[in-house]
Amino acid sequence: MIKSWIEIKENSDFSMENIPFGIGNIPGSGPKVCTRIGDTLIDISMLSKLGYFDQLGRDEDVFDKEVLNPFIAKGKSFTCGVRTIIFECFIHGGASENESSLLNERALYPADSIEMLMPLDVGDYTDFYSSREHATNVGVMFRDPENALLPNWLHLPVGYHGRASSIIVSGASIHRPKGQIKPADSPLPVFGPTRQLDFELELAFVVGKNTSLGQSVPVAEAESYIFGLLLFNDLSARDIQAWEYVPLGPFLSKNFGSVVSPWVVTMDALKPFRVPGPMQEPEVLPYLRTEGDNNIDINLEVSIQAADQPEFTVCKSNFRYMYWSMSQQLAHHTVNGCNIRIGDLYASGTISGPEEGSFGSMLELTWRGTRPIILPDGSERKFIDDGDTIIIRGHCHKENLRVGFGEAVVTILPSN
Amino acid sequence: MIKSWIEIKENSDFSMENIPFGIGNIPGSGPKVCTRIGDTLIDISMLSKLGYFDQLGRDEDVFDKEVLNPFIAKGKSFTCGVRTIIFECFIHGGASENESSLLNERALYPADSIEMLMPLDVGDYTDFYSSREHATNVGVMFRDPENALLPNWLHLPVGYHGRASSIIVSGASIHRPKGQIKPADSPLPVFGPTRQLDFELELAFVVGKNTSLGQSVPVAEAESYIFGLLLFNDLSARDIQAWEYVPLGPFLSKNFGSVVSPWVVTMDALKPFRVPGPMQEPEVLPYLRTEGDNNIDINLEVSIQAADQPEFTVCKSNFRYMYWSMSQQLAHHTVNGCNIRIGDLYASGTISGPEEGSFGSMLELTWRGTRPIILPDGSERKFIDDGDTIIIRGHCHKENLRVGFGEAVVTILPSN
Repeated sequence: MIKSWIEIKENSDFSMENIPFGIGNIPGSGPKVCTRIGDTLIDISMLSKLGYFDQLGRDEDVFDKEVLNPFIAKGKSFTCGVRTIIFECFIHGGASENESSLLNERALYPADSIEMLMPLDVGDYTDFYSSREHATNVGVMFRDPENALLPNWLHLPVGYHGRASSIIVSGASIHRPKGQIKPADSPLPVFGPTRQLDFELELAFVVGKNTSLGQSVPVAEAESYIFGLLLFNDLSARDIQAWEYVPLGPFLSKNFGSVVSPWVVTMDALKPFRVPGPMQEPEVLPYLRTEGDNNIDINLEVSIQAADQPEFTVCKSNFRYMYWSMSQQLAHHTVNGCNIRIGDLYASGTISGPEEGSFGSMLELTWRGTRPIILPDGSERKFIDDGDTIIIRGHCHKENLRVGFGEAVVTILPSN
Repeated sequence: MIKSWIEIKENSDFSMENIPFGIGNIPGSGPKVCTRIGDTLIDISMLSKLGYFDQLGRDEDVFDKEVLNPFIAKGKSFTCGVRTIIFECFIHGGASENESSLLNERALYPADSIEMLMPLDVGDYTDFYSSREHATNVGVMFRDPENALLPNWLHLPVGYHGRASSIIVSGASIHRPKGQIKPADSPLPVFGPTRQLDFELELAFVVGKNTSLGQSVPVAEAESYIFGLLLFNDLSARDIQAWEYVPLGPFLSKNFGSVVSPWVVTMDALKPFRVPGPMQEPEVLPYLRTEGDNNIDINLEVSIQAADQPEFTVCKSNFRYMYWSMSQQLAHHTVNGCNIRIGDLYASGTISGPEEGSFGSMLELTWRGTRPIILPDGSERKFIDDGDTIIIRGHCHKENLRVGFGEAVVTILPSN
């Protein structure tokens, strides 16, 4: 672990090797592009004003914005340059006493004192379904245990378009959604609050480069179109979903709200944690064939915290389990010429591992409510209760190097 | 028909009663909010500069923009005021000779000389499936003729999220998309250009007012959130769709491109053409119950024009056939708290009527390719060929009053 002149606690997600990007609401000056080292938030727009990035060219000020999109649009040579300059400035011994006290005074804030805002203007959001274990679990529960995977699943990364407007940043609350539910014992649907509110543990990647309509992204070049990743909670109302989803897919069961972590961790920061993906058998079509370490070893966990109770971890999973890689997802998404735009989000789908404790949704963890989870206060959970807070965390580690995502947190309020 | 001092040909879609809004690319000055009367395009931003809208307040110039969103965001009292002032200015006798020659010189253009641009920044696009005839036809072809409608269909307006990035304005060309197809006689999917490229005849409404996450739009108030309508062609690749769509719905079979007409016709202009919708049986849940004339009598037609051949009309349908109204679609979409934003598009789904010639897609018109259409040059069409141009038109008429949408045109190029 590389040392900074800023304090970094052991096991901090925000090591010198991380330097993620987000939008902080700086008191008195509003939304600015920020980063975080340890428990210190750094206002990058102030570094820019102080001339730190002059060597990268000084045209439009992309740091004094409400979202990261204009910054990302400058391209990787610029964004990598910014990361490098920040690294060199904050490395132990990288700043003189005068410089560090100037920075302390002008650009540094205790991270917990700054409200983090939704970091992206999301043009389009797509949700994949790329964990074999998740798709298998769902198939076993709702369809045929002998043929749990549908015929297309091993040939293409199944996905669907989600709702961009209702993606919110960590820390918000969402009212339990209402909708149509068809109880098994009723001939007709009823209307009311969902009885089966669930989370889905996911990661999402952020598009870093536009394409034109008609252009395809070759799988070998796909990563150059990915800026970074964030945690993603694809909240789902299972009973609404079961009734509405044929034949056109999930709709109101998903679009009442999804939650992202505030920090976008760059692909560069994740480089040390690359691992091979699973063997793909049958072999995929040529436009989806990849080589090398296409997956990333990211430890993920989900905790539930009932009101006034301690947190309780219900799931530990890992992004390395994904069957379809991000490159394959992006190559597939664009093989028909569909254009992508900076800020688009592509979520992985629920990330379930092979063991029971690694399933990424309550649906799977409680096996459709048949095996409730017992919280520390003795209460049972088949799904999510009103007042529960859902906390997703993620980090990579390798020897003494750690790079993490922080948290994606949401509290469920009663139906309004 | 009310007369203008601008020539309006008989049967023009752009009567004095219409005054739709679009974005014209004015030579030498760029994208501006425009309207059209007869074959004359009117640069509204120039009317604004000339002081025509001073009585409505002069803050931000919402006419000198690349999209209609800021104009729509001013609210209906403003947008209606603009329509009224334009009407009063261009009505026969409404302008002095000096005034009309000033306007001719500064603000009027032959409509066919001005490139029309994509009129909206579409935050989210939803596609419904609200024609009973269409859903029944698809159900008969692909599922069970005895139970053609799925169990949920009569209880809620089925819909799914589509891709916003690839919605383009009339006049463009799209390359035939490639993708995975699973031929019936092959054990494995193959990759290649779609063999079943189709149109879908639709209308889409444009959201005119934002809501907050958690807020629902009551069905009785839904129309106050609708700014206007435009023609919509939801291009579809049927073979890609058949292979990919389980269990999460259409994805690459749709997102390679959708086409809108350039003019947004306001709800006010459509008022004279309101008609009751069909009886809904079984009765819908209370949040979907409506009274009054919820449908609109809009004549629709689709023509195919093979390269260097005359147009041939393949479908005549009507928007009045819709089972689910726009108000019901919007109330359903937001009943779970999903937020909507100005510029969002909500497409109807394929608008099929009861007779064969009124089906809104090649899939239905040729009954899955079993009854090909013969074009005037003797060539057969089961689906759309390379080089074909698809033209959707729509208009309302009642006695001697006509209000129309113009065209949504797209040409299909060979796969690239």
